Amino acid sequence: MSVETVSETRSHGGVQGVYRHESAATGTDMIFSAFVPDHRPDATLPVLWYLSGLTCTHANVTEKGEYRAACAEHGIIFVAPDTSPRGDEVPDDPDQLYDFGHGAGFYVDATESPWDRHFNMWTYVAEELPALVGAHFPAATGRQGILGHSMGGHGALTLALGCPGQYRSVSAFSPIVAPGQVPWGRKALCHYLGEDEAAWTRHDACRAIGAGARVDDILVDIGTADPFLEKELRPELLEQACAEAGIALTLNRREGYDHSYYFISTFMAGHVRWHAERLAR
Amino acid sequence: MSVETVSETRSHGGVQGVYRHESAATGTDMIFSAFVPDHRPDATLPVLWYLSGLTCTHANVTEKGEYRAACAEHGIIFVAPDTSPRGDEVPDDPDQLYDFGHGAGFYVDATESPWDRHFNMWTYVAEELPALVGAHFPAATGRQGILGHSMGGHGALTLALGCPGQYRSVSAFSPIVAPGQVPWGRKALCHYLGEDEAAWTRHDACRAIGAGARVDDILVDIGTADPFLEKELRPELLEQACAEAGIALTLNRREGYDHSYYFISTFMAGHVRWHAERLAR
Repeated sequence: MSVETVSETRSHGGVQGVYRHESAATGTDMIFSAFVPDHRPDATLPVLWYLSGLTCTHANVTEKGEYRAACAEHGIIFVAPDTSPRGDEVPDDPDQLYDFGHGAGFYVDATESPWDRHFNMWTYVAEELPALVGAHFPAATGRQGILGHSMGGHGALTLALGCPGQYRSVSAFSPIVAPGQVPWGRKALCHYLGEDEAAWTRHDACRAIGAGARVDDILVDIGTADPFLEKELRPELLEQACAEAGIALTLNRREGYDHSYYFISTFMAGHVRWHAERLAR
Repeated sequence: MSVETVSETRSHGGVQGVYRHESAATGTDMIFSAFVPDHRPDATLPVLWYLSGLTCTHANVTEKGEYRAACAEHGIIFVAPDTSPRGDEVPDDPDQLYDFGHGAGFYVDATESPWDRHFNMWTYVAEELPALVGAHFPAATGRQGILGHSMGGHGALTLALGCPGQYRSVSAFSPIVAPGQVPWGRKALCHYLGEDEAAWTRHDACRAIGAGARVDDILVDIGTADPFLEKELRPELLEQACAEAGIALTLNRREGYDHSYYFISTFMAGHVRWHAERLAR
């Protein structure tokens, strides 16, 4: 389990790195970024996972996310995986659309052919990458938090709900909260998991909560000018599910903000603080 | 003098816009970005100009510069022009290199053919764009500051030194302080201004200071791991010139930082604060 350093750059009192490794889960090389704040030689730091949205790689949040100052302040390692396996050998959307295939792994382990060979992003994010980060970075893997944006917000919510005890904190920007009820989600889950919706439950945050999955609390920020709000994101469904389940949801509707990193970067420091408070306990 | 809105996006309690206009100075369309913090309807805000380095457009600092939080806090409009005229009609480096021509205007008014037709970035930044921003934004054009990076640091220093009374504050990241003595600078000034170095004086910060140009004080940050430090930037020459002239130079050598936006974004808030203190007076 080796890691190749693509780049390491000093920033905000820490090191922003980009790394490549062979993934057993996806059967491809995978690239991720990790920011490690300066720390005492013997210290280990909590890890905050950031899952990106459709079309993104690690690079989008690494360049535009404005998380480093807050992570350095709170002493948190910030890791951003890619959103799917990639490469000529990895099948892609037959229609070449942005919302499925490359850049659109939806954080599931696919069960349907031909997707099941490479699209195992659940195992990659929940198991393989934490083990690798624990082995190669000064990471306190007993203290993990997870957040994400859009498709990655879906991933953060479903991983936190589906892996009890693994994540002490969860938050999301503009998440897809009910993929089984919206076009992006239904397309992806049909292809990756098949048309029997019983297999979708743990990959749909609202259905998972309905089926009994629990976290202590959730922070969500969403922009009122987000063009995907009503058709794809539908935060009111998460509000309803959390209310029925007794999960403490903090849902901030941000007036005039959209779906972009101009929105995410504005509220990133607040999300890092939310996680820091829970990871320090 | 009209301005076309390319995009306007809510961010950090303000509006990040990108705009296009026909420039009389360059004879081309020019694009710039402007961040305007929320303000009272009748208020005008000071303007901070950011001049970018070689190869950049407005987009690099707009996406990676992490200036919006600080500008919103201090109530400052942040404007980032392009680094040169562009377009098929604009001559470019015959060798297609990155350090001259498109993306490399060096903030001069060229006097040599064929560059003199379009490469008038001094007039564009010092005169045309301030007039346009004053007409179309809530800008207090009597309160301007200027900063820049690398070639843009050169531009910030030479414009502040060369336009007495126009800028109340000046700072730079990794500036080219003595273009007449380094390869990037000599190539550009030879082409744009000709081989008679008497014409270069106001476009070389160290020579301009030697010839009597003055500002009250200067803030410079530079990384000790900057690959261009010894050959192109040579901050020691600015130290010497400022010491001889009695100009208060704050020169921060940042251990392990390089030439990238990972460096710039780390210290951007400190630069905005430096300007805010002087623009509030």
